Amino acid sequence: MCTYKLTYFNVKGVGEPIRMILSYAGKKFEDVRIEKDEWLQLKPKTPFGKLPILEIDGKVLHQSAAICRYLGEEFGLGGSSKWENLQINMIADTIQDIKNIMSHFYRQLDAEAREKKRPELLNETIPFYLERLDSIIKNNGGYFVNNKLTWVDFYFAGFSETMESMLNAKVCEKYPHILQHRNNLKNIPEIKKWISNRPKTEI
Amino acid sequence: MCTYKLTYFNVKGVGEPIRMILSYAGKKFEDVRIEKDEWLQLKPKTPFGKLPILEIDGKVLHQSAAICRYLGEEFGLGGSSKWENLQINMIADTIQDIKNIMSHFYRQLDAEAREKKRPELLNETIPFYLERLDSIIKNNGGYFVNNKLTWVDFYFAGFSETMESMLNAKVCEKYPHILQHRNNLKNIPEIKKWISNRPKTEI
Repeated sequence: MCTYKLTYFNVKGVGEPIRMILSYAGKKFEDVRIEKDEWLQLKPKTPFGKLPILEIDGKVLHQSAAICRYLGEEFGLGGSSKWENLQINMIADTIQDIKNIMSHFYRQLDAEAREKKRPELLNETIPFYLERLDSIIKNNGGYFVNNKLTWVDFYFAGFSETMESMLNAKVCEKYPHILQHRNNLKNIPEIKKWISNRPKTEI
Repeated sequence: MCTYKLTYFNVKGVGEPIRMILSYAGKKFEDVRIEKDEWLQLKPKTPFGKLPILEIDGKVLHQSAAICRYLGEEFGLGGSSKWENLQINMIADTIQDIKNIMSHFYRQLDAEAREKKRPELLNETIPFYLERLDSIIKNNGGYFVNNKLTWVDFYFAGFSETMESMLNAKVCEKYPHILQHRNNLKNIPEIKKWISNRPKTEI
């Protein structure tokens, strides 16, 4: 039996999809959540100076999408053909694009510049992505790919809550299929249990 | 026989790895390179407002890493196990991180702010990544993963030249294994032929 140790910050972000997939698969994992001063010490020891990292039997994995894809394929959440995997990966990379936009916004230390950027994000950039993702879910029976649950559903669901907290706006609420998708995932018994037990965090 | 049509700008960037992989596999492809005014018309018709897109028999693929992964697996450039694919994907996502940093730098329209950022990129950020990538190549027999050519080798090689042009500095020259990697790829007969025939571009 493998041992899993996830190291990330005390936020949902791109660590949350990994936590969700491990929970879904019924795997016990060490959920290490570090603070800023610990991070400064740990950073030089990570593969590329970033979190999350996941240790599987002591072997260090990095990059959240690569980790989710690997775990997903291990736990029956991958595509059943190269073509299906392509659909999953195109969505995952698109979610990463949104993540990069969000992280750039959130890390902007100059509060005035940040507020100046907010309307464009809220009214243009994020709706542009959400409209298209909503339509993909609509056309795929409530999931992102081919009417079935895959790892990229968790990749989006885990991250989208952080996106809303960062924007301080329930931006997903306008999109019925995204909301339905979120609810469907939350009602999976293993995920329901994980959500009720997980530490409460601001973002 | 499939038909391939790649649409991108007249630069190497993240389109170049796709061109390289198709060339390596001996596939003929339509290499459409569009200008800014054409892009404004095409943008709303693309899946997420971005290029490159690759049409295979008319089906539209987007996201450069997802496309390279799909083509790579089709043409024998994937990993031979889930674990090997994980290694490939961790590198690909890391290259995407560099790509995001570079694209943010390059798109900075305020020339003064851009020049202010340049020394940090040249002296810290990019070397941080290149040192680690160089060491990975060293430990994997001249490739990124398990002593053999995979699609992520093209993903890096194609993009790294654009990175140097954007920075206007031969930043890879300090890293012997990265240089060797580049030369090895350039000496693959199909790639040599592609490079000698491809349009000459600034970046």
